[in-house]
Amino acid sequence: MSGDAAVAYARRTESRFVGDLARFVSFASVSAQPARARDVQACADWLAAHLRGIGLADATAHPTAGHPIVCATWRRRPGAPTLLVYGHYDVQPVEPVSAWSSPPFEPTRIGDRLVGRGASDDKAQLLAHVAALESYLRTAGGPPVNVVCVFEGEEESGSRSLAPFLLAQRDRLRPDLAVVSDTTMLGAERPALTYALRGNLVLELAVRGPSHDLHSGNFGGAVANPLESLCALLASLHDEHGRVAVAGFYDRVVPLSPAERDLMARNGPSDAELLRSSGSAAAGEPGFTLYERSTARPSLSVTGVAGGYAGAGAKAVVPARAVAKLDVRLVPRQDPRTIEQLIRRHVATHAGVPMSMSVIAASPPARSDLTHPLLQAAAAAYARGFGRRPALVRSGGTVPVVAMLQERLGVPTALLGFGLPEDRMHAPNESAHLPTFARAIETCIWFLHEAARVHARPRRTTVAA
Amino acid sequence: MSGDAAVAYARRTESRFVGDLARFVSFASVSAQPARARDVQACADWLAAHLRGIGLADATAHPTAGHPIVCATWRRRPGAPTLLVYGHYDVQPVEPVSAWSSPPFEPTRIGDRLVGRGASDDKAQLLAHVAALESYLRTAGGPPVNVVCVFEGEEESGSRSLAPFLLAQRDRLRPDLAVVSDTTMLGAERPALTYALRGNLVLELAVRGPSHDLHSGNFGGAVANPLESLCALLASLHDEHGRVAVAGFYDRVVPLSPAERDLMARNGPSDAELLRSSGSAAAGEPGFTLYERSTARPSLSVTGVAGGYAGAGAKAVVPARAVAKLDVRLVPRQDPRTIEQLIRRHVATHAGVPMSMSVIAASPPARSDLTHPLLQAAAAAYARGFGRRPALVRSGGTVPVVAMLQERLGVPTALLGFGLPEDRMHAPNESAHLPTFARAIETCIWFLHEAARVHARPRRTTVAA
Repeated sequence: MSGDAAVAYARRTESRFVGDLARFVSFASVSAQPARARDVQACADWLAAHLRGIGLADATAHPTAGHPIVCATWRRRPGAPTLLVYGHYDVQPVEPVSAWSSPPFEPTRIGDRLVGRGASDDKAQLLAHVAALESYLRTAGGPPVNVVCVFEGEEESGSRSLAPFLLAQRDRLRPDLAVVSDTTMLGAERPALTYALRGNLVLELAVRGPSHDLHSGNFGGAVANPLESLCALLASLHDEHGRVAVAGFYDRVVPLSPAERDLMARNGPSDAELLRSSGSAAAGEPGFTLYERSTARPSLSVTGVAGGYAGAGAKAVVPARAVAKLDVRLVPRQDPRTIEQLIRRHVATHAGVPMSMSVIAASPPARSDLTHPLLQAAAAAYARGFGRRPALVRSGGTVPVVAMLQERLGVPTALLGFGLPEDRMHAPNESAHLPTFARAIETCIWFLHEAARVHARPRRTTVAA
Repeated sequence: MSGDAAVAYARRTESRFVGDLARFVSFASVSAQPARARDVQACADWLAAHLRGIGLADATAHPTAGHPIVCATWRRRPGAPTLLVYGHYDVQPVEPVSAWSSPPFEPTRIGDRLVGRGASDDKAQLLAHVAALESYLRTAGGPPVNVVCVFEGEEESGSRSLAPFLLAQRDRLRPDLAVVSDTTMLGAERPALTYALRGNLVLELAVRGPSHDLHSGNFGGAVANPLESLCALLASLHDEHGRVAVAGFYDRVVPLSPAERDLMARNGPSDAELLRSSGSAAAGEPGFTLYERSTARPSLSVTGVAGGYAGAGAKAVVPARAVAKLDVRLVPRQDPRTIEQLIRRHVATHAGVPMSMSVIAASPPARSDLTHPLLQAAAAAYARGFGRRPALVRSGGTVPVVAMLQERLGVPTALLGFGLPEDRMHAPNESAHLPTFARAIETCIWFLHEAARVHARPRRTTVAA
């Protein structure tokens, strides 16, 4: 069975697929904000209904302790491997709303892009697989492999329900292989296969000051100011060279081999390219390229600070509370729990006043075996979809499911990403590049074709008692 | 003419005066927030109408480049001095709204207090004078002195329009004396006459980072983070002992004399009292009491920081921008412009990246002559209104009009304050203590009585050309 008929179907259905994407993006599925819980549920319900509509009859939005996990199975190819297709239908918060040129949940076509929160991360990437499945279901009765779709609604807020779900459903799902599309390529004409992801550790630091906001005229200079204490602590987290100053932070980091540095230099973006796409000045650890700093080296970013009044004009207050959010990214051999303990120790020894620290999300780093046939299948699929073999790249981002699938469940996983550097993921005016969406659908069709040839690992048989 | 009839009128009119206060507090006259400009105007219009209603026929809300100045005159006591009565009808922002137990502009009676933004600062204090004037107008045809009311709408945002107004109207207003009620007493049973105010310098610091918010997974560790740069700069503003670390900051500060330290120790709040009313731990310059630190020594407070995302959950961003607000309080001989330059130099030498700094407000410190008969008049008025002579105290706050009246116009000014330490000025759940409001009205009546005996300074006569 070839993918040609499926590709032909996908091409003639392209405009409807774009319509599906616009509908999908119109849901305000912001998983981190409790006020959006109904929108997340509505998005899950729409997605499950859509999957049933294309022929995945058992598609269901499974309730969890957090947001639903949308799950669907198709198992009519006895002997073929079972592929777990992962995506997430939740999105990042949209703040600051004023920075958007169009409302973030009213998807807007601008040139060859569709602008809206989540358009690229991860709704177009998720929907590319769904469109590929539909193309096979309509033209060949179904895809050439067995498929299990697992689409979660908590990727942007820590994936808390995913591990319990996968462990509980392991015997029902029985995946042999997995594909995750939640990473970026190097450009619209430069497909890239990601072989390593950083882990993360997302923390909140909070400092209490006076029992209520005080007048900074009447009390300024005499009482402890939680914002000042917090800023001093945040400033202590990096040294003057840009290295993380938490004792022991780099202790277990695996050094980059000369061979991998060479591969990275050949395949990855240059410093100039990274600075151009970021619109920023360089910073961080000396002795490494920016691509190495942001993918193969760990980092600690202050992602938010709030306290007092910072709106128009000014308000004369010593605030009662100040809060900061930290995003720590981890590389192989760095364990989120160990790093959390090191940061707790740093806070305890460096903070002038008591501070509370809580973990919002944590996930270990992940790295694929470049020699596995699944990665060869992914490379072949990119070559057919984009007319060019993919570069092998590291990503600085974190997709918690990858570590979970590979490390905990032992399922080889391919990172078949379709985001572009200019998609403004997580930022205002996020958008999806529609020509890339079309090529992604074809790549997913060819990936299903190639995956059928990957030999499933021997399944462990149950031993009678 | 005694004040007894006026006091009797005030006592029988007390509940209507409280009703006036509730109406006054219901206006959201937040001068710092452009979106509230109409509410500020509506409040000014109400106040002018109220003044006309009590018999000050020329009361008008004068337009300015900013918010209106409400002005009214009464000049039917030839030979008596002319007293300028100053107050402000604008209020601080209310954020965070969620911390209020009742809506900030729906004044709510709780026990013997009226809760609402601006209830104490400065609406009850302003209205105490208006009620005192009404009491004389209804019982004696008018107060025993000539009166000029100047009620501004920009005190909480820098009083930008006040100096031009006072200078332009100088020949029309011709005040001999002034009274300003915008300070606090030591407690409901402990009246206090403030003889010194700190100046202020309110600054905004802004740092630009990437051209748009970046994904902190994909870019963290490789690009400059404006929040981190800002926190490092803010941390550099104090040394490890709590002193301001800006070079030259203390150079021109007038040292406290042993005699004044003694007066302060006898009259002012103890460290324990200040900490109790603040609900905070102590901080700041070693070698000074907390009362000295917060009134007679300069200070620099970080009053707000914002950047990135600090709401529920987390957002993985390197933000495009970060901003901080600073409130610097100044003591005699410190000039706001000089201090601004010193801070600019500090930012230029200590910031790792370019930062922009703008001045939101600036006002010099002010100090009254304790031997002036006007201060004796104020002390006598407190003694009759509260049954106890006032303590002589310094305030850490800033009332820009005082420096303007005393230093620029040469008008002796009494600070007849009625706020209480527990009024939560500038904080959520601000309230006015209604028994103190009633006593304040009587004190204002007696102050008008006493002020009539203060000899007006010789007026300069115009010399013919």
